Amino acid sequence: MEYRYSGRMANLNGTATREIFKLLGDPEIISFAGGNPAIECLPTARVKEITNEITSSQDFARILQYGLTAGFPEFRELLAEYVKTAGINGAKTENILVISGGQQGIDLALKTFIDPGDVILVENPTYLAFLQIANSYEAVCKGVDSESDGLDLADLERKIKKYDPKILYCVPTFSNPTGKTYSAEKRKAIAEMTAKYGVIVIEDDPYGKLRFKGEYIPSIKSMDKAGNVIFVSSFSKIISPGNRTGVACAAPELIRKMEICKQGTDLHTPNLSQMITYEYLKRGYLASDLERAVKIYGKKKAAMSSAIAKYMPEEFECTDPDGGLFIWGKFPKGIDAVKLLPEAVKRKVAYIQGSVFFAEPEGTENYIRLNYSYANEEQIDVGIKRLGDMFKEQIANLKGRK
Amino acid sequence: MEYRYSGRMANLNGTATREIFKLLGDPEIISFAGGNPAIECLPTARVKEITNEITSSQDFARILQYGLTAGFPEFRELLAEYVKTAGINGAKTENILVISGGQQGIDLALKTFIDPGDVILVENPTYLAFLQIANSYEAVCKGVDSESDGLDLADLERKIKKYDPKILYCVPTFSNPTGKTYSAEKRKAIAEMTAKYGVIVIEDDPYGKLRFKGEYIPSIKSMDKAGNVIFVSSFSKIISPGNRTGVACAAPELIRKMEICKQGTDLHTPNLSQMITYEYLKRGYLASDLERAVKIYGKKKAAMSSAIAKYMPEEFECTDPDGGLFIWGKFPKGIDAVKLLPEAVKRKVAYIQGSVFFAEPEGTENYIRLNYSYANEEQIDVGIKRLGDMFKEQIANLKGRK
Repeated sequence: MEYRYSGRMANLNGTATREIFKLLGDPEIISFAGGNPAIECLPTARVKEITNEITSSQDFARILQYGLTAGFPEFRELLAEYVKTAGINGAKTENILVISGGQQGIDLALKTFIDPGDVILVENPTYLAFLQIANSYEAVCKGVDSESDGLDLADLERKIKKYDPKILYCVPTFSNPTGKTYSAEKRKAIAEMTAKYGVIVIEDDPYGKLRFKGEYIPSIKSMDKAGNVIFVSSFSKIISPGNRTGVACAAPELIRKMEICKQGTDLHTPNLSQMITYEYLKRGYLASDLERAVKIYGKKKAAMSSAIAKYMPEEFECTDPDGGLFIWGKFPKGIDAVKLLPEAVKRKVAYIQGSVFFAEPEGTENYIRLNYSYANEEQIDVGIKRLGDMFKEQIANLKGRK
Repeated sequence: MEYRYSGRMANLNGTATREIFKLLGDPEIISFAGGNPAIECLPTARVKEITNEITSSQDFARILQYGLTAGFPEFRELLAEYVKTAGINGAKTENILVISGGQQGIDLALKTFIDPGDVILVENPTYLAFLQIANSYEAVCKGVDSESDGLDLADLERKIKKYDPKILYCVPTFSNPTGKTYSAEKRKAIAEMTAKYGVIVIEDDPYGKLRFKGEYIPSIKSMDKAGNVIFVSSFSKIISPGNRTGVACAAPELIRKMEICKQGTDLHTPNLSQMITYEYLKRGYLASDLERAVKIYGKKKAAMSSAIAKYMPEEFECTDPDGGLFIWGKFPKGIDAVKLLPEAVKRKVAYIQGSVFFAEPEGTENYIRLNYSYANEEQIDVGIKRLGDMFKEQIANLKGRK
């Protein structure tokens, strides 16, 4: 039988990271491709302790029964406090929606706002799964130029005027894929400009807590006076990705709309997942675990930076992030990181081609994203050497051809 | 700021059950409104045992890390066996998608097929949350007449020819809301007719295992020769709704499309949720727990049927299901169960107005759905008496006015 798929399916393919994730059954491959937190940072002992207490509680039947779509009331209350760590003060329960990972928060926000053909502005480059979600709503994504301290404000205003976008999507702290962080001034300017033009901001903050260098900067949401910013954060990178919990914080009217959208998608986030994150936060485990985790990530990042200096061709330029999970790199034009990926996998090392992070990918095949959180320091050294060797050969070829 | 919502939001309101669920904080209210399994049927001890073993396993870090979108391979393998209990033989891993509850399976299927304006055929009446999900894709739902043994086949064919629907949605075993079951003959005819006309069938089977009377009937999917049936089942009613796990079984091409859609919505079902259901099934707990559960549901159903006979007005007609969770009832025209719901809640008893289960709800305010799984037998007696008193008064008024 020939299937008559929806229009959105024409533009939907598996995301590069998810597809590469499947290849990683091979334990010999050193992967800089995913966005997995370090195994050694996962709080297995804490989660075990918490989970066993939950299953032993009088209340356990409540966990097995249906829950409210917006999340357990006590969890939402705690999350209204938790978002203060991103500078968001005065949030109440009605500003909070429990979500099944940050991904779902983005999905629900687009469901609430996007009709086919609506324009969304994104940073150039941006989170690739966002582009996929936007495709699933048949949105048109337009890239905004990026500077070292965040969006190019002149380009942002130009494109707001040109396209009348409904949404601006950004990852202002330790961006995926670049690792860059927006300055406080730019955040304020973005909050004001989007409010002025009536543009919704989806502020995606999965990495904000993973700072190993530099000063904390409050979220764009903390500067939101018009109620146009939807703050989405995830516990995937700081507690457990497999547990699929996150939080959205926005004006009550928007939270209510997103809650209604959530009814139709998964009814509610699994109760045990919610309670694990709730208890973990309530018991105050996050601060000390984070302190340990960012030390580990800082060391891994340093290991990767120094391996890059040692092994990568001198023509390679890359970012130097203060936190998060990613380094973003650029080769000279003519180096095609898309075509070279199978060769890299053959050499037992994986990265993500940078082109998949661009709303308009033409001419971006010379970029790559490198994740430093998952591999250990020795693997980082070996893996970057493998990449360096491969790319050096390519650059030599390129020069030979000239 | 004035928000520019998507077109779909105009038709999206909270579902009646989810909204009433919020009212049920009041422990004095006897609720026949939801679809919650009986507290005493939730396998708290088993899930506790399983969960504690999972958290103690060497492998626990794997549970906390990211997982595959389609689900754990060993879980998918087991589910390919599991669907044999619905008569589906020969399923392989690639026919199986792990979903975050049955709701998500429906959502992903519509995402795969539905563009705004596409027609979906549903039974008259049908599962209300399905209508909400269909609204979120801006589908047009058309009702097909229903007989005691399932869809009216002549009406089905007429409406397939008239509307060229992409999808037929049905709950063939112990339907929500009616409790009715399609005969084997009708299932076969539906499989053949939809294949002939190229219509996708979403066969929703959350209640099939909850049979306390009568003979097992294989699923429509088991009769699917064309690959046009998507079978969706849930573990919510037989293990735990709060755990949010389910299974979709369909042609590999469709499973792959639904998997891609799932990437964008929640990345994957929480690993611990998956492993709890996996271990529960693997250990063979389902058969004995089900045996106990269906006895309880059978007794509750009998209690409700006899309370209805005792207390409800003689004009009230209702179904007599062999399984599942619901009785469907009809009052004479002129009785408005929509308007009377607040009065019922005032009298500390809740039902769901039947009108919300109709694709075209005009003239259906005389129907109600009663859930018998959640309340205990004493509450069933007291609650039905409260309802009976209220509706008898209304019928007396109605007669007085004539």
